[in-house]
Amino acid sequence: MNSIGQCFRFTSFGESHGTAIGGVIDGCPAGMLLDMEQITAELRRRRPGQSSLTTQRKETDEVEFLSGIFEGKTTGTPIAFIIRNQNQHSADYEHLRNVFRPSHADYTYEMKYGIRDYRGGGRSSARETAARVVAGAIAKQFLRAKGIEIIAYTSQIGEIALEQDFVLTDTALIEQNPVRCPDKDKARQMIELIENVQREGDSIGGTITCVMKGVPVGLGEPIFGKLQAMLAYAMFSINAVKGFEYGSGFRFLHAKGSELNDPFCNEQGKITTKTNYSGGIQGGISNGREIYCRLAIKPTATIFKEQQTVDKAGHEVLLKAHGRHDPCILPRAVPVVEAMAAITLMDAFLLSEK
Amino acid sequence: MNSIGQCFRFTSFGESHGTAIGGVIDGCPAGMLLDMEQITAELRRRRPGQSSLTTQRKETDEVEFLSGIFEGKTTGTPIAFIIRNQNQHSADYEHLRNVFRPSHADYTYEMKYGIRDYRGGGRSSARETAARVVAGAIAKQFLRAKGIEIIAYTSQIGEIALEQDFVLTDTALIEQNPVRCPDKDKARQMIELIENVQREGDSIGGTITCVMKGVPVGLGEPIFGKLQAMLAYAMFSINAVKGFEYGSGFRFLHAKGSELNDPFCNEQGKITTKTNYSGGIQGGISNGREIYCRLAIKPTATIFKEQQTVDKAGHEVLLKAHGRHDPCILPRAVPVVEAMAAITLMDAFLLSEK
Amino acid sequence: MNSIGQCFRFTSFGESHGTAIGGVIDGCPAGMLLDMEQITAELRRRRPGQSSLTTQRKETDEVEFLSGIFEGKTTGTPIAFIIRNQNQHSADYEHLRNVFRPSHADYTYEMKYGIRDYRGGGRSSARETAARVVAGAIAKQFLRAKGIEIIAYTSQIGEIALEQDFVLTDTALIEQNPVRCPDKDKARQMIELIENVQREGDSIGGTITCVMKGVPVGLGEPIFGKLQAMLAYAMFSINAVKGFEYGSGFRFLHAKGSELNDPFCNEQGKITTKTNYSGGIQGGISNGREIYCRLAIKPTATIFKEQQTVDKAGHEVLLKAHGRHDPCILPRAVPVVEAMAAITLMDAFLLSEK
Amino acid sequence: MNSIGQCFRFTSFGESHGTAIGGVIDGCPAGMLLDMEQITAELRRRRPGQSSLTTQRKETDEVEFLSGIFEGKTTGTPIAFIIRNQNQHSADYEHLRNVFRPSHADYTYEMKYGIRDYRGGGRSSARETAARVVAGAIAKQFLRAKGIEIIAYTSQIGEIALEQDFVLTDTALIEQNPVRCPDKDKARQMIELIENVQREGDSIGGTITCVMKGVPVGLGEPIFGKLQAMLAYAMFSINAVKGFEYGSGFRFLHAKGSELNDPFCNEQGKITTKTNYSGGIQGGISNGREIYCRLAIKPTATIFKEQQTVDKAGHEVLLKAHGRHDPCILPRAVPVVEAMAAITLMDAFLLSEK
Repeated sequence: MNSIGQCFRFTSFGESHGTAIGGVIDGCPAGMLLDMEQITAELRRRRPGQSSLTTQRKETDEVEFLSGIFEGKTTGTPIAFIIRNQNQHSADYEHLRNVFRPSHADYTYEMKYGIRDYRGGGRSSARETAARVVAGAIAKQFLRAKGIEIIAYTSQIGEIALEQDFVLTDTALIEQNPVRCPDKDKARQMIELIENVQREGDSIGGTITCVMKGVPVGLGEPIFGKLQAMLAYAMFSINAVKGFEYGSGFRFLHAKGSELNDPFCNEQGKITTKTNYSGGIQGGISNGREIYCRLAIKPTATIFKEQQTVDKAGHEVLLKAHGRHDPCILPRAVPVVEAMAAITLMDAFLLSEK
Repeated sequence: MNSIGQCFRFTSFGESHGTAIGGVIDGCPAGMLLDMEQITAELRRRRPGQSSLTTQRKETDEVEFLSGIFEGKTTGTPIAFIIRNQNQHSADYEHLRNVFRPSHADYTYEMKYGIRDYRGGGRSSARETAARVVAGAIAKQFLRAKGIEIIAYTSQIGEIALEQDFVLTDTALIEQNPVRCPDKDKARQMIELIENVQREGDSIGGTITCVMKGVPVGLGEPIFGKLQAMLAYAMFSINAVKGFEYGSGFRFLHAKGSELNDPFCNEQGKITTKTNYSGGIQGGISNGREIYCRLAIKPTATIFKEQQTVDKAGHEVLLKAHGRHDPCILPRAVPVVEAMAAITLMDAFLLSEK
Repeated sequence: MNSIGQCFRFTSFGESHGTAIGGVIDGCPAGMLLDMEQITAELRRRRPGQSSLTTQRKETDEVEFLSGIFEGKTTGTPIAFIIRNQNQHSADYEHLRNVFRPSHADYTYEMKYGIRDYRGGGRSSARETAARVVAGAIAKQFLRAKGIEIIAYTSQIGEIALEQDFVLTDTALIEQNPVRCPDKDKARQMIELIENVQREGDSIGGTITCVMKGVPVGLGEPIFGKLQAMLAYAMFSINAVKGFEYGSGFRFLHAKGSELNDPFCNEQGKITTKTNYSGGIQGGISNGREIYCRLAIKPTATIFKEQQTVDKAGHEVLLKAHGRHDPCILPRAVPVVEAMAAITLMDAFLLSEK
Repeated sequence: MNSIGQCFRFTSFGESHGTAIGGVIDGCPAGMLLDMEQITAELRRRRPGQSSLTTQRKETDEVEFLSGIFEGKTTGTPIAFIIRNQNQHSADYEHLRNVFRPSHADYTYEMKYGIRDYRGGGRSSARETAARVVAGAIAKQFLRAKGIEIIAYTSQIGEIALEQDFVLTDTALIEQNPVRCPDKDKARQMIELIENVQREGDSIGGTITCVMKGVPVGLGEPIFGKLQAMLAYAMFSINAVKGFEYGSGFRFLHAKGSELNDPFCNEQGKITTKTNYSGGIQGGISNGREIYCRLAIKPTATIFKEQQTVDKAGHEVLLKAHGRHDPCILPRAVPVVEAMAAITLMDAFLLSEK
């Protein structure tokens, strides 16, 4: 299952060390003038080597569009694009041909398919998310024209967390530090923590928060197409995501109904809610308030400490990563989270227009 | 969107105060001998009025099967069933015709559809989940024959939480108290808390944990059909769910990669993992270990305290529930969580057989 | 697979001699005031016993709506309905428990599922089409409000065929004879032929023509969602259909491109085509002209002549139908063809609105 | 909608004069050793310029695989491939920018999308079918390993038709003449007819027959997933197809039930049918006999005779094709028909395994 979405349908393909990764978008409305520079900018946010906190692999990630665009505009036909793989050190992976790395997809792919491209994680590599960023960048352009903005940021690394999440004063701060946290002080602490972990050859996780502003009332389908379910589904497709909460989430379990209910009020002729513990969604349908959610992201599985594991034959193997890997995936995962949010909202938007 | 699943496809229909609720199951394998008594038993676990902690509404919830079963066995054709609505005090709801109850689906349904059956929440009523319990009971029978068991229980109410979750010694304890918590002492405290909240006319939430045992290696499809995404999607279809985590989830954000990685080992010729922070899923595919997840569930929106809200015209309205409502939905949500897990696993099982 | 459609999604269930047949419609727009009388009228057109040409089984076919309608209007939630089975002579079928009737679905169901409800054909019975007629009647009401009309009629029985098909002067003639042919003389000959065939204990087929008027430009999706493909898919779901042609079809194989091309012209400011060999669809998309198609329908498989066949064990069996069966299914298939056309067009209409 | 299939899902993309056409296959089982030479051979059968009967455009149609194949074998991940466009005389089409060619998709695309790539028909060009041939070639390899063979051939051009269709003595004859007709004499007459039509600057259509041998019992899903409906749906995605019939089709409307029913018999312990008017499908499910169907294909819309039409502004325009076009598309459509049959059968095969 390599497709997501019903109206705006994105299909992803490609392995980390194959010929190319890429995607096909089916259902993008015709007549959109695409801003190619913005697509490149989003890819740059996801790219390895962007700071000392991330892997130093060099991937140019140049996207080539193959179809669906005519004289700069979408035509309503499928938009296919590819990003060729380069700078692959495939030989680096030869020793992994028969070994199952802990907490990677090696074992389950091997058992499910009986074959796998072991080089760089193959299909299960996070490199695949570059294709999502392209699709997400197109979705963002569509949504922006409808007044919808999507902002994600790092809200926690290890135990260093924003004190008040979802209360963003200045989103411009997010891109001003390599960890993509909108609080300068916290960002500094997070960077320090990641650097320490990196020196130990270890890795660390955290949380990413995503806020969707300007979403109109009415997106989402009740029962089995609820907007929160669509968002959760999209987010759990991202490799290291282990948790998803929206609105009051896990954080308000101490509170009672009378404290969490969002009373409706009339604000200069417009019905809205006083508080927003619902997280912008009620009965599975957006209610016009900001949608916000938070993702728990585990530490990168690839570490430079020695680990014991087994190979295909069941023999014990000592494993120690070499090569170039992220000690913390969150900074580069931020644009991926935005991409999945954008793909989902655009799909929900088109669905609701039927 | 009132259907879920691809191979085992369940369609739900019905309003709380309409003629009937029910469902259609498409894709149930032929030749299964159905245990009708077990279906009834599951419905009884969800039924109102089962203890002093739940609403005292009397709903008999008798299920009538219409098709797809011949001489006691499934035939591979669609299994349709209905549960007629009874004991409806529809007049109780007349005052809600034009009012938007806080944190309910009234406002969003009204805005999306321009019309809604306001009686008892209509389509957005939790009554709809009875149909899911029927489908889930059938899925459970299928899974049990494959050696798969699904167990859910209340792991937290308000701030009263199990000390060690997922370490179940005796699942038989779950059904021995009305709150469905496998720890006697905690259960007592939870019940007390709910009774206090109830006296105040308020409501309270908590967490439900779900454990899936005996799941074979290989369920789930990489990228956009990951098993955790399918489970999250299913769980977020349940009305009050605000968060979903599996494996290390939100609870191990302090830990490093070296602490959370699950090393593979050879256990008497069988490859498995020493620890299970992955929660039984790696790369979106089950790895043969127990799958476990936890859901954050908000307090019931209907409370007996006075709340301010507005009506369709934007006029302020004072609202105070009367009638019969649960102060805490978790005890009755436990079988619904199991049903959604069963529907999802059965679908993943059939999908993986292709 | 018992569902059809993407936006207007219809799920059918039920066996001929089970408790009930019925359906669920998901995706019907909210706010439609349903004309229940018109639904009953369509069912009456399909009902057995309506003339001496059809089976004399008495089926009252009373439809009960269970959900999705509030104060007479659709609410956007699933519309479920059932038609209870009555007047079943199930004992009539006991001798067929282990026998494979020629050109029925007995053998293939048995082989695919290992079990089947043999009574009256079970799931493969044409009785199932009553549920489609209900869904189709709702779709017709939707389409009518958009100016779209669907008309089907018998255009050929055996070798008695309309001389000029698709050139309808008076559609009112269709319902004035029991064979549903708009040409009085031909209708008389067709009736005679059917009566002769009936006396011989045999059966006969023919063609049904379907015309869709008022279809706007733009329905249908290129490549794998072409309008003609959607229509063909829907029509081949009807039991006895063996062929589908639209536009020039099989009938103009002698003609050249210069004779069949439809030149565009400007008709008082409106672009249209001079001729309509395309059948109202170009590149898979409706072009605003009438859509017309024709279906080849084989003779009813159930005949009163002795036939040799085998049972499950492979033993030879002599078979001769008794009971009540149609010598020619076309008169009663006409409303089913219209229903499938309506379901398909409504789905295409909603799809094109995205 | 640019995808087809549920288990074996093929997505097509690309415009005739864009950068590339191509496709993505999702759901191909892992571990298949692909015969690349056979894929190239199928593309060669579809390629322009293969004989004097076809367009003399030179398209090398070199396919590049991007993903899903590792060490020569499929891995269960998506197989993406592209065929770059070359030898495009895009300037040839400049005069068509605002003109609607008769019986092409120009007008409907323009109306539906408000924009279109007019060069060489853009997305609606038959060039897109090259991608289907690649997917079909892979499906054929899968099916061949299961003992299933798919054979298509030209059975009629204009009024020159095979006397006895479906009675193939020697399938090797098909590829021995440029018109792909298994009857030498008829082939000669067909070629003559096409050459005459070509000299006149006109075009001609005909029928293609497709036979599927070795299909096991049990493919196809009753009601809305019947095998004949899946096949018809797939075939009507081919540009010029105007009719589809299988089994007795339109050709036996004179015959009665007693003549067309296929009696079951016991052939050395194996239950089969004596005749095969059913065309290998009963109740929507394959019965183990040969499946055969026939397609009506209209003359190519592009002709070298002067035609009157209009432009976007509604002005009359005289149009006369130049460039390189097929006077008869059937010889090159034969491999496309086989490809669509293969894609459909493979999908049905995988579906039936669930």
